[in-house]
Parts: sequence; structure tokens; C-alpha cells
Amino acid sequence: MKTAAFTPMRLLDPLFTTDPMREIFSDAQRLQRMLDFEAALAGALVMAAIAPASVLPAIKSQCKTDRFEFAAIAREAALAGNIAIPLVKALSSLVAREDTKAATFVHWGATSQDAIDTGLVLQLRDALELIEEGLANLHGALSRLAETHETTIMAGRTWLQQGPPVTFGLKVAGWLGAIERHQTRIERAREQAMVLQFGGAVGTLAALDGRGLEVAAALAHELKIALPELPWHAHRDRLGEVATTLGLLVGTLGKIARDVSLMAQTEIDEVQEPAAPGRGGSSTMPHKRNPVGSAVALAAAIRVPGLVSTMLTAMVQEHERGLGGWHAEWETLPEICMLTAGALGQMTQTIEGLEVHPEKMRENLDVTHGLVLSEAVSFALAAKIGKKQARQIVEEACRQALDQRRQLRDVLFERKDVTDQLSMQEISQLLDPNHYLGSAGEMMKSVLSPSRKPRKKAKRDSSSRGSSE
Amino acid sequence: MKTAAFTPMRLLDPLFTTDPMREIFSDAQRLQRMLDFEAALAGALVMAAIAPASVLPAIKSQCKTDRFEFAAIAREAALAGNIAIPLVKALSSLVAREDTKAATFVHWGATSQDAIDTGLVLQLRDALELIEEGLANLHGALSRLAETHETTIMAGRTWLQQGPPVTFGLKVAGWLGAIERHQTRIERAREQAMVLQFGGAVGTLAALDGRGLEVAAALAHELKIALPELPWHAHRDRLGEVATTLGLLVGTLGKIARDVSLMAQTEIDEVQEPAAPGRGGSSTMPHKRNPVGSAVALAAAIRVPGLVSTMLTAMVQEHERGLGGWHAEWETLPEICMLTAGALGQMTQTIEGLEVHPEKMRENLDVTHGLVLSEAVSFALAAKIGKKQARQIVEEACRQALDQRRQLRDVLFERKDVTDQLSMQEISQLLDPNHYLGSAGEMMKSVLSPSRKPRKKAKRDSSSRGSSE
Amino acid sequence: MKTAAFTPMRLLDPLFTTDPMREIFSDAQRLQRMLDFEAALAGALVMAAIAPASVLPAIKSQCKTDRFEFAAIAREAALAGNIAIPLVKALSSLVAREDTKAATFVHWGATSQDAIDTGLVLQLRDALELIEEGLANLHGALSRLAETHETTIMAGRTWLQQGPPVTFGLKVAGWLGAIERHQTRIERAREQAMVLQFGGAVGTLAALDGRGLEVAAALAHELKIALPELPWHAHRDRLGEVATTLGLLVGTLGKIARDVSLMAQTEIDEVQEPAAPGRGGSSTMPHKRNPVGSAVALAAAIRVPGLVSTMLTAMVQEHERGLGGWHAEWETLPEICMLTAGALGQMTQTIEGLEVHPEKMRENLDVTHGLVLSEAVSFALAAKIGKKQARQIVEEACRQALDQRRQLRDVLFERKDVTDQLSMQEISQLLDPNHYLGSAGEMMKSVLSPSRKPRKKAKRDSSSRGSSE
Amino acid sequence: MKTAAFTPMRLLDPLFTTDPMREIFSDAQRLQRMLDFEAALAGALVMAAIAPASVLPAIKSQCKTDRFEFAAIAREAALAGNIAIPLVKALSSLVAREDTKAATFVHWGATSQDAIDTGLVLQLRDALELIEEGLANLHGALSRLAETHETTIMAGRTWLQQGPPVTFGLKVAGWLGAIERHQTRIERAREQAMVLQFGGAVGTLAALDGRGLEVAAALAHELKIALPELPWHAHRDRLGEVATTLGLLVGTLGKIARDVSLMAQTEIDEVQEPAAPGRGGSSTMPHKRNPVGSAVALAAAIRVPGLVSTMLTAMVQEHERGLGGWHAEWETLPEICMLTAGALGQMTQTIEGLEVHPEKMRENLDVTHGLVLSEAVSFALAAKIGKKQARQIVEEACRQALDQRRQLRDVLFERKDVTDQLSMQEISQLLDPNHYLGSAGEMMKSVLSPSRKPRKKAKRDSSSRGSSE
Repeated sequence: MKTAAFTPMRLLDPLFTTDPMREIFSDAQRLQRMLDFEAALAGALVMAAIAPASVLPAIKSQCKTDRFEFAAIAREAALAGNIAIPLVKALSSLVAREDTKAATFVHWGATSQDAIDTGLVLQLRDALELIEEGLANLHGALSRLAETHETTIMAGRTWLQQGPPVTFGLKVAGWLGAIERHQTRIERAREQAMVLQFGGAVGTLAALDGRGLEVAAALAHELKIALPELPWHAHRDRLGEVATTLGLLVGTLGKIARDVSLMAQTEIDEVQEPAAPGRGGSSTMPHKRNPVGSAVALAAAIRVPGLVSTMLTAMVQEHERGLGGWHAEWETLPEICMLTAGALGQMTQTIEGLEVHPEKMRENLDVTHGLVLSEAVSFALAAKIGKKQARQIVEEACRQALDQRRQLRDVLFERKDVTDQLSMQEISQLLDPNHYLGSAGEMMKSVLSPSRKPRKKAKRDSSSRGSSE
Repeated sequence: MKTAAFTPMRLLDPLFTTDPMREIFSDAQRLQRMLDFEAALAGALVMAAIAPASVLPAIKSQCKTDRFEFAAIAREAALAGNIAIPLVKALSSLVAREDTKAATFVHWGATSQDAIDTGLVLQLRDALELIEEGLANLHGALSRLAETHETTIMAGRTWLQQGPPVTFGLKVAGWLGAIERHQTRIERAREQAMVLQFGGAVGTLAALDGRGLEVAAALAHELKIALPELPWHAHRDRLGEVATTLGLLVGTLGKIARDVSLMAQTEIDEVQEPAAPGRGGSSTMPHKRNPVGSAVALAAAIRVPGLVSTMLTAMVQEHERGLGGWHAEWETLPEICMLTAGALGQMTQTIEGLEVHPEKMRENLDVTHGLVLSEAVSFALAAKIGKKQARQIVEEACRQALDQRRQLRDVLFERKDVTDQLSMQEISQLLDPNHYLGSAGEMMKSVLSPSRKPRKKAKRDSSSRGSSE
Repeated sequence: MKTAAFTPMRLLDPLFTTDPMREIFSDAQRLQRMLDFEAALAGALVMAAIAPASVLPAIKSQCKTDRFEFAAIAREAALAGNIAIPLVKALSSLVAREDTKAATFVHWGATSQDAIDTGLVLQLRDALELIEEGLANLHGALSRLAETHETTIMAGRTWLQQGPPVTFGLKVAGWLGAIERHQTRIERAREQAMVLQFGGAVGTLAALDGRGLEVAAALAHELKIALPELPWHAHRDRLGEVATTLGLLVGTLGKIARDVSLMAQTEIDEVQEPAAPGRGGSSTMPHKRNPVGSAVALAAAIRVPGLVSTMLTAMVQEHERGLGGWHAEWETLPEICMLTAGALGQMTQTIEGLEVHPEKMRENLDVTHGLVLSEAVSFALAAKIGKKQARQIVEEACRQALDQRRQLRDVLFERKDVTDQLSMQEISQLLDPNHYLGSAGEMMKSVLSPSRKPRKKAKRDSSSRGSSE
Repeated sequence: MKTAAFTPMRLLDPLFTTDPMREIFSDAQRLQRMLDFEAALAGALVMAAIAPASVLPAIKSQCKTDRFEFAAIAREAALAGNIAIPLVKALSSLVAREDTKAATFVHWGATSQDAIDTGLVLQLRDALELIEEGLANLHGALSRLAETHETTIMAGRTWLQQGPPVTFGLKVAGWLGAIERHQTRIERAREQAMVLQFGGAVGTLAALDGRGLEVAAALAHELKIALPELPWHAHRDRLGEVATTLGLLVGTLGKIARDVSLMAQTEIDEVQEPAAPGRGGSSTMPHKRNPVGSAVALAAAIRVPGLVSTMLTAMVQEHERGLGGWHAEWETLPEICMLTAGALGQMTQTIEGLEVHPEKMRENLDVTHGLVLSEAVSFALAAKIGKKQARQIVEEACRQALDQRRQLRDVLFERKDVTDQLSMQEISQLLDPNHYLGSAGEMMKSVLSPSRKPRKKAKRDSSSRGSSE
């Protein structure tokens, strides 16, 4: 196996991505997927009776990465401008050793970009399947967390300032709702992008003598991907959509991570990332538990937008096949997939094992001595004496409570302009956070409702992921 | 009208955007759409019997931008942190002058972000409608151009080097296919994003005493937008999707512009952007026609990716309502819409009036003395003597033709290793570009086929775009 | 004055930028700076005896924005592809009405880009001067704040978790040090970028008959900017450097804003942004003070990186003068300047009026019951019994303290493996944050030292900023 | 050697970067540079008499990457959140096997980030040295090319349209001038960034008992980098400046590549990238020579801006040490360095071996039949009859020449309004491109002048680059 040396784990891989995604975008798989294309092409040429059936065994048997010298291909690619040229050359030589006639039909009618792009599509199929599985897992974890904390009360926070209460369940339901929308988006992007690239030198399949579409159809069928209306060598919107769709997902993962890490601040301590031996330790502060999962997701949320902008900028590709833009994608799109997988994996682990401190949530709700519920009083008063006057009274009372470090309730009890309108019992109730949750419960239910059709957990069909040998 | 001064055209607006899109994102419309929200909210409160019907006239009559001092709102927004706070304050004062009770119900139960976000959604509804109209126009122009040039032959080009021939029709069909995919994407993004924002301070609608969802439903109905499962104050994926979808579209417009401008190079001269008095003139070179439309689309294709990355980065918003991320969107998303409209408008004009020079296309195909068709000979020989040997012969012949500046045909005629396999007539036919177009014709037909369900040209329903007063 | 209507404040301007910066990049100034170029060019042509002195008055008297119809120029620019073409045309007409001979020498030898680029350089000169003034102000405010809080102790925080103590002064000194580095960078970028653009159609000054460099030198002298070795129409690195330099500055402003907003969280409450009537109020929560200054700086830190990437992408400009890249800069670089000014202004105000709560800082340092000082104990023990064993003991003690919610000190007092090595007095001292500040004091002094040459506060030389009329 | 497996070449490395730069940012070097920090720290602790001299051999002998299990460190880093934690743990164990006392002083007083950041600075020192060498080489190649083609005449091009002539030498001088400015910028960025990171847990060096600055000074001295005023854990402007400076350089490399690839278009054919076996070949078009060097540089110019924006976005790091932002840098800055090296290397090769076709340049200048020199006639006429009238006449003549496909000269000869002002000889001379080069020659000389102090070619001081063992 010459392959092994070419799929090593790098130092930061386990932190920033997952093993399966790293494997999909390893050099070995990059080549294997191109070889899958070449093997399937041979099959398609035979089906279209362009090549004799006899050429198949010789070609298919060589379409395995372990037959190739990676370093030599890499070096030649630096001169040729892409890896398909040396790969096809090496494949032809290998096949020729067995069967010179078969060698003629290697890559017949195709251009480098056909092999590279279709190979990428096959890698993306695996990648999106992984992401969908990951999303299903995160979805499950979030659903459970939301249900568990349906009534766990905590401070709502806006502009990093405390506001009226929410439930932790509602907050989690918000994360969940976004994840569901991403599931829909990824399905759509997948449908758009899982298409064959096969056009020959300039997209006309001229070398196939007018039988190009027949070969293309057979090839798409063999590879189990769709046949597009036209080759899309210089039209990269489908790949761009994969990038933007993952970019949107990573934005949400970053948002969840930001929330988790803010709640995990030492002073707030409402949640902690899961504990595990070696996890989140600090080299100098033995008691600390660093939110490693959040750090990874936040890092991805900082990195992926720039990579997405690269994919969009790269779309301006010249004529039938472009210069530079295409090259700019080769490492960028895999990087997006790997960072997405890493962030998704880390946040899933984080959510699955999240330590939640409901008592601390409740405690934090009291740090303002009731001020976060001033809105409740304000609205109750407004309904009686008008908003403007109500707001003035409440603002005064709040300031008093702040200055004197007293409970808002006690201040309100003393104000005749308040007690004229509201009884002490009414005031107490208004300042009870459990009575100021509005429609939180109902809203959550609509997200968690079991009647909503559950998105099936993607099952990995291993047969479709292996090499097509 | 105090409004007028706040929607001025700026110097570069006519170049980079269109008048209707500029109007949609004018300051006046920004305020009007927020006021539409406030007016509809009053109606919804009445429907839910939270406010008496009597408050409606006083509120609705003031929800018009011409009642407001823009400069004062702008100045106060710099302190308040957003424009809804001073707007609502001013609105309350105006209403109070007429009806103090009504003033109490202004903005009742809502938070600033509800007004700002829903206002933005209403602006985006108009914006996406415009884009869809624009796409329908461009689609039409491209269809016509592709049909006209179904058989216009020209050099295919890869890596900026000539390759085998294509038809200009096929090139245009490629543009067209991409535009169709963008039409689908925009439809989807629109469906996702056209949703109400209404959650109150922290997304629970707590101030509405458990009747929040009822009010929300009435409000969404009034504004003719969908009611989402949850308020989405800190979940910006829907807006992000609008941004990325337009970003993808602009990438394609940039690609078309790059192609047009390369074909319009003085030495190549296969197309020219449409002539018009004052269009594309140079201040010092009277004979030049600068590809202004392409310049605008290319500029957009350079600018929008960075703006999209901003929208993605901004998604990391804290807790119930974030700090900074939300603010980062306010000018960015409108800018994306305006640049998209500008690029779309300019490229539509460019395509509609494109001057095409078929004779020059044909002429350019000959500059290599037949070398661009060497592939045809190579494949024909390969079928007889194997690919490797065929390629060697053709490479030699090509080098000879290049060095001696002769026609490839003449060189081939002289080579016995060629003429042993192919008759002169066969060679001549192989070197006739019309015989080396592969499946170009068939491919085009599948894109242009009248049987494909035509996407209806979006009709602007003016009623849905006016203020809801 | 036709100008007025073209420099209106827009709704979000006061929030996101400053009035003087908005003025510099107003449409009126954009045109005026180009007219300054045209006026100076006339002077230079006269000095080089290419034009007779008699042409000067007619030209100079028309080089004022109030002579021009902005809307007409804007509309024509949409056809011409830039604003210089219609501006020069209009200027020539205006001059011709007075003196037809003079009209001939309007724009003589120059190309549109000469006027636009040099005009931009003149705007940037003003802009960078403003930024430098702003930085001097922020520098002063930070120096004062750091000195005031030289010994104010607070929790250090890493990964959003509390660590050992720092002083607030040291934190501020860190901000200050970064600001000083930015001052140096901006000086350098200014020196690089303040150069004339003057090359004629393709950068050879061919229309000036070999006297081009003479005219160029006179022109640079007149405009008080440097004469570069070559025209730089398609080499945009100087402008790119202005963008990146401001981008770096905004990154630091965002970092300060993040720190301030985190410290201002309700639960932490160590600082608050300055209070002012209307500042940071919430529409529904009367007691809240939103960190508006931080929000603006954070928004800038999200937006500017994308704009910087646009400027870098736009650098790939074709041949002597490019297509699209140049256009992409026209709104982008001004936007970067305006956002930088806004963030700088808001953070300066924030720092100048920052409310600091030293008692709360001290209080927060105790929330871990001493755990944040475990490192001190760990190191003291390690010096006696080796690091590995020391760490084990301290980790155990920390866990005990956490689980039992007791002071670390009390736990340590009970452990014989600790008291064998350290006396109770030693332990107490190790757990006193004032004894665990390391070199904080010394470090701060090196930043604040009065012996360091103070950077002079930039004085605005108003003469150089007015129009050159 | 366990190291080897961790610095493999990946498939696309030879295309997109250079071997020496890949080596600098290999995993092995990443760890070695951190170990260099640890070794030097031990030395500094000894110098400050904090650790006994006896600990040095045990520590230094283990600070070699071949002692470590990379995979284990990578796996643990995924839990710990960074690679320094497992590395230091492993180092301590290795040292402890030899000398338990020495193990205590491993990493003494430092935090993970000190090792990671300083290690990065040491890598960047090597990287910037490589870039400076590369720039010196490119500078040399450009100087030679400019000198060779000082008088080679060609069409100037603006907006991708031909304009008046330039010399190829002047075009190259423009590239050269930009490269020189980048040399200056890189020198400055290097000075700023080559500083020690050493602050301990929160930047106070508290664990060093007040002797922190002494240790820091010794450490900086040992590593031959500067000692900054303050630790800069959460202030990333210096690293950001490295990123932006390289970003600007790549922009220029992309501009050169765009120019080269446009000139190398089949129809224009003024230059070709150097030929070499296997270089730029096409898999299907044997005669084509693809501009591979330009493709690589253009790809870098598309990718690096997004990566720069990531570095800027990542600057917003919280408090004493941040969360996510720091992580976002770890792969991004190395990637910028590697892409810059690749683009620089490819463009240097391209320029060094560039095939220039002066005769084709001259030929292309004639494709407009003299129209590109219409400006010369226009100015000559304007000097006699005024600009407006002159321009009208020339525009008419140009249109006539275009329509009739005749030489402009012949058209002008026939026009009495022209010949009244200019003799036929004068007209002929005006239309001779050699007479319309303006100050091109003088300008070039100022760039190429031997009196300008040549920037010395950076000599690689190998001693400073090896591991400090």
C-alpha cells in the first residue's frame, strides 16, 4: 500500500475536524474518487459500444490508489497544473502494461476537469452524508435537552444585559429550529450539486463523435449521480451553494457555541461543557474547565466565512474552463467541509454532555433584585395609567432600587403611585419570573411537537461510499 | 414631505444599482417599513381585543414617514443604538397629540428588533421581487441570444488558450442554465426569509399576557408574511441565506461579464457591449468602447463575496438578542441587494443589446492554423493505432506547424504515418470545426427546449409593495 | 449651492461614523477633490509653459462643486463608467462659456483615473489626519484610565474562565500598547499612499510631449503630495495598505469593545459604558444600559475584514488600467474609513466616560473561593516537592473546595501534605491576589513611562483640508 | 525518527507552495519551534537562578521532535484544546525519566500560549526570510526583464481595450516598483512581529515571583527575538500585520499573473510562460501551453484575501486570552505564508523564463489600423483649434476608419480640416507609436537606475533557523 503515507492525520486535525471527514478528503480518497470516475467511464464507453468490453478488466483493476506513486503525481502536477494529467498518464501506463488496447480507452473523451470535478462531487456526496448524520445527532441531542429544560427558568439576555426571563428550553428550541432549517438547506444543496461533470476539452464531448450524451448518461448511472443539462466546467454555482450552505450552518454552530461559552463563564456558571479526562484542562490552572468544544465551533465560525467568500470570488471563471478560479477551490471547499464537520462534532458532543445548573440560572435571575421584571410592572401599570406615565414611575423605582441596592419589590411597595394601581400581591406576582414567560411554553411545543414529522436519521449506505471497483 | 431629502441619489448609485432597488433601501422606505409594522401591530392588538378599536385611526394615520424628522431620529439612534427606539418614541408623541390612550398601544408588546427586522423583511420582499423580475428579463434575453447563435461557431477556450470549437449558442446556454438555477434558489430563499419577527424583549412575548401567538398570527396575516415557529432575533440564518443566494447569483453575473469583456478585447473583438450615446466612452480615446456593463458586474463580483462573509460572521449573535452582529447587518444586506440589482441590470442591458461578430469568431478560430482541432485528429488516429502513438504523431505535427507557421492540415498531408491511416478527405473533414462540435447542438436544445416549463415572468403586484396603511 | 443636497446625513450615519469623516467622503467632497486636481493641473500646465497663464482664472473659478449638477453627472457616469468623464465634460463646458481657449486646457494630458485617484488620495489625506487625531484622543484617554487603575485588582480571564488576578490598569495598558502600534502603522501607510496619480491614458504622459514629468512634479507640489516614480493606475498596493492598516486598527477596537461589553454584563458589572440622556436605553427595559459604543465597534470589526478582503481581491487589475477591480474600490475604501472613524469615535467616548467598579472587580475575584489562585499554591508547592506531585495535591484540593463550596484556603489548611510544606500564613499570603500580580506593575510602567516620547496630538491644519480654490 | 510521517508532502503542495515553506510549517517544525521555546526557557530560568544549572541537560536533550508521538499529541490536543498541553505533559514525562527535579522546571512560569505563540514567531521568522529571498530573486528577474525590453513597444491597454502604446519595459517596471514597496512592507512587518510571547497564565508572569521580566529578557535573548513591552496574548495586531502584508504582496503577484495570462492568450500571444517538459500541457490538447504559473498566482490572489479577513476577524479576542479567535489563526496564518511562497515561486520562475514576442507585440499594435494613436492626433489638433473641435474631427475620422476598415492615416490624409492644420509628414509621425511614448523612458530609468541602492539579497543564516538543540 503506497497510500498510507498520504492520508496521515495532521497535528490539528483531531481538534478541528473528524476522522471520517478527514478520510473523505484525504489525498488517497481524492485520487480514488478520480479513479472511480475513470473506471466508470470505461464502463460507460463499453455500454455505448465505443470501447470493446475486453478493455474493462485491465482498466478497472488499475483504478486503485495503491497502484500509484503519490509523490510523483504531486511533483508532476506542479508542472502540469492539475493532478489529473499525471494521474491519467500513470494510469494509462499501468493499463498498457497489461493491455495496450485498453490503454487507448483510458480517459477516452474526457478532460482533466471531468475527472477532478466528478471526483470532487463523489467526495462531497460522502461529506454531505456525514454532515446530515451529524445534524441528525445534534438534532436529537437538542430535542432531548429542550424537553428536559422545558420549564427551567433563566434570565433572557439582550446586548449582553439581562432582560426578562426565558426558559432554557426555549433557548435550546431556538437552536433546534435553526438546525432544522439547515437540514432542509443541505438536502437542497445536495440535490443541486450531486451531478456528473463530463464535457471533454471544451464541454461539447466532441471526441465522442456525437455519442457523448449516451456515454454521459451511462456514466452518471454508473456513479449514481444525476446527469445535468450541460457540462458546468466554468459554472461553479453548485459547488458554491455547497459552500454557502455549510457556511450558514457553521454560523449557527458558532451562535450556539457563543451562548454556551458565555453561560459557562466563571461568574455565570449556568452550564459547563462536559467533563472528560484531559478535556479542557489548563496547563497552569488545574481547576479550570475550558470550553474546548465552543472554541472549536467559534474558530470555525471565524474561518468559514472567509473561505466561503473565496468560493464566491472564484466563481468568475473564464470561458469554457477558467484560470485560477478553479484552482482556488481545490483546497478551499474540502477545508469548509472539514471545519464544518469538526464544529458540528464538537458541538454535538458538547450538547450531548452539557452540564446544566438550573439552580444557578435561577440565582442569576435575582442579581438585579427584580429589575429584569420591571417590564412586567411597566406594562401592568401602563394598561391602567398609560404607557408614558407608567414608564416614568417604573424608571424612577428602578433607579432607586439600583442606587439603594434594594429589591425592586420593596421599592414599589413604598410608592403610592404604584400601590394605588396594584395590590402588593399583584406586584409580587408581576415580579415572579414564572409568571412572566409569555408564550414561551407554547412556542417550544410547536418546535418539539411529536406530531412534526421526524427527520429520519441518515443511514450511511456503505456500499455507495466505497470505491466502485 | 420631510422624506424627500432622505432618499437622494448618490453619485455612484446610477452606476452600481438601479433606481427601484435604491428606492426600496432608501432611508424613507427603511422607516416606512418599520411604520408598516407598527401600524399592523396596532391592528393585530385590536383583533386580539388587547387594544380597543378606537386606537387604530390615531396610530395608523401617523405611521407615515413624512411625519418624522429624519435627522433627529438619526442623531438619537446614535445614542440609543438603533433607529427603532427614537422612531417609536417620536411615533408615540405624534399619536399622543391626537389620542393619549392610543399612544399607550403604540409598539405594545414589541421590542425594537421586532420593528427593525420585520421592516427589513418587508424591504427584502420587494427586493427579491425585483431581482426575480430582473432574472426573468435576463433569462429572456439569454434565451433569444442562444437561439440566434445556435450554430455560430467560435473557439472554445480553456486556461485562456484556444481549444476545440464550441458554438456561441452553447456558451450562452451555459449562462442561461446557471441563471435558471439561481431562479430556483431565490424562490427558496424567499420562502424561508419572508417571515414575521415578533417576540418582544426576549422572544417570549411576555408583555402580551399569554396572547402573544394570537397577536403574532394576526400581525403576520396583516403583513402577508409567514408566521415562524419562534421569534428569531438571534438566529440570522434566514437573512444569511438571502445574502448567500444573491452572492451566488452575482458570481454567475461576474462570470458572464468576464466572458463578455474578454471577447470584447480589441484583438479578439468577437462581441461588443451595446453602443449608446455616452456609453463606455473614454475621456482621452475617442474610438474606444469600454465594457461598462461588464465592469459593473465584475466590481459586484469582487465586492459581494466580502459582504456575504460579513453576513456569515455576523451570525454569531449572543443569547436572546446579540451585540454587534445584528448591527453589522443593517447596511450590509441592503448593499448586497443593491449591488446585485445593479449587476443584474447592467448585464441584462448588455446581453439585450450585445453586438455579436460571428465572422470574427470564425476568423479567430483560424489563428492557430488548425491546431485547435488537433484533438480531432488525435482521437481519429488513436482509434486506429492506439492513443499513445497517435498523440506522439499529432504532437510532432503540431510542433512542425507552429515552427513553420503552416496549416496543420498541410503538415499532416505530408506525413506518411498519418496518411497511411487517414485519407486527405478524412483529414480535411477532421480539421473542419463544424464537424467537431460533438453534442453541442443536442445539449443546447435541452436547455432551450420549449417543452421545459417556462418560469413565469414575475409580475409586480404593486398592492403588496405599498405601505400597508 | 447645488451641493447641499448631495451631502445629506443618512439614517445610520451618526451611529456608524462621525460627521467629519462623513463630510470627507460626501459626494460633494468627492467631486471637489477631483476639481482640486483639475485646478492644480491647470496651474502645473502654466508653470511648465504648456498652457498660457491666461487660462488659469477661467479654469480655477469653475473648479467648485457648487457649479455642477450632481444628478446629471451621476446619470452620465452610469453610461460612461466613471464620474470623471461627465465631470470633465461639464467643467469644460463651464470654462468654455468664459474662455474657449482655457477650455482646451481643462484636463489636458490627464485621464479620468488621474482625477479620480488623486482626488481619492486627497480625501484619504484628510481621513488619515482625522484618524490620527482620533487615535491621539483615544491614546490620551487610555493613558489616564491605565494610570488611574494601576493597582485596581481584578480577575484575569482566559477562555472566558477566571484565572489568576491582573490589574485593570494592566488590561488597559495592553489596549494602549496596541493603539500605539497602530499609530506607527498609520503614519507609514500615509507616507506610502499620499502620492500623485498622473499618467495620462496609459501611464506614459504621452500627450505632454515629453514634458510630462515636469508637469507631474509641479502638480504634486501644488497639491502638496509626493511624486511617485511611476503612475500606479493598475498597482493598488498603496490603497490596499490604507485598507489593511485601518483593518488592523478596527480589529483592536473590536477587541477593546469585546472586553468592555463582557465586563459590562449584568452579572459581572465591572464597568459600564458612560451614561448620557438617551444613550443605550432599551425600548422595553427601562433599567438597562446597552453598551452602544461597544456594539458599534464590534459591528465595525465584523464588517471591515470583509471590506479589506474586497480591496485585496480588487488588486488584480489588468494591464495599464483595469476593469472592475478599480470600480470595486470606489465605495469600499470610503466605507472602511467611515466605519473606522465611527468605531474609533465611539470607543473613545466609551473609554473617556467609562464607569469602573473596582469593588465589583474585587468581589468577582472571590467567586471561586480562591481557586483562581490555586496556581500560586501549586508553584509554591512544586518548588518544594516537584511539579507533578504539587499539581496532584492542588487539583484534589480544588475539587474538594468546588464540591463542598468552601474556600480553597480552608481546604488547604486541613491537608497535611500541604501544611507540611507551607505554613498557614504562607498559604494565606499565596491566596491573597495582591501578592500574585507578578510583574504587572513593572510592565505597566514601561508602557506608561513619561520618558517615552509622547506622540504629539495631530493638529488639524485646516488650510490643507479646504478646497484649493 | 517518529517525525518523518508528520511532514509528508500532500498532493497539491508542490503546485501551491514551495518545499522550504512547507517544511517550515510542517507539523514537525511546529512542534520543534515550541520545543525550542521550552529549551530556551530552561536556559533563561537557569540564568535567572530560578532553576539550577543542573536541570538544563535533561530538558534540552528532550526538546527534539523525534522524541514525541505525534498522533498521541494530536489526539490529546483535541481534548485539551491546544497542542501545548499534551506536548508539555509529554516533555515533562520524558525529562522526568532522566531527572525528576528537572521535570519540575519544564515550562516553569509559562502558559500554553507562550509556547505556541513564540513557536509561531520563530516559524514566521524563517518564513519571512524565505519570502524576502524570493522577493530578491523576483526583483532581479524583473529588473533584467525591464532592461531587456526598455524599448520594446506594445499596445497599452485599459479596460481590456487597446490604448496608446507603452513599452513592455515600462509595464515590467510597474511590476518591479510594486515589488520594491512590498519589500519595504515586509521588513517592517518582520520588525513588528519578531517578538517574544511570554506572560504566564494571564500575562503577569505571576508564577515567577517578580523576576518575570528578567527571565523574559534572557529568553528573548536566547531566541534572538525582541522583547515586547507587554505580553500580547489577546492582542494579535502583529500577526495580523504579517497576514495583511503578505495579502498585499499576493495582490500584486496576482496582478502580474493576470497581465501575463492575458498577454499569453492564443490570439494575443505576446508572451508565453516558460516551456519545460510536462509544464502546462493539456491532457487533450497536445499543442497548448497552459499558463500554470499564472494560474497558481491567481488562485492565491483569490484565496489569500479571505484568509486575511479571517485573521482580522480573529483579532477580537477576549480578555487576557481569548476563545476561538486564537484557534482560528493556527492554520490560517501558515496557509497564507504557504500560498504566498507558492505564488511568489511560480511567478519568479515565470518571469525568469518568460518567452517574449516583441514582433507580435508590434503586430498587435496595428490591429486597430492606427486608432490607438488617435489621441496623439487629437492633442496635436487641439493645440491649434481647441480641444472640442479637435476631438470631433478625430472621432469622425476614427469612425470612418473603423467602418471602412482603413488605416486612420489614410482617412486623415483625405480630410481638409486636418491637413489644413497638419502636414502629411506630421500626421505620419503622430501615428508612429515610437513617437508617442511620452515619458516612458525617463520613468523607467528612475525605477531601474543603478544609483538606487540595491536591496541586498537576503542571505539565509542557517544557524538561526536550526533547532536550538
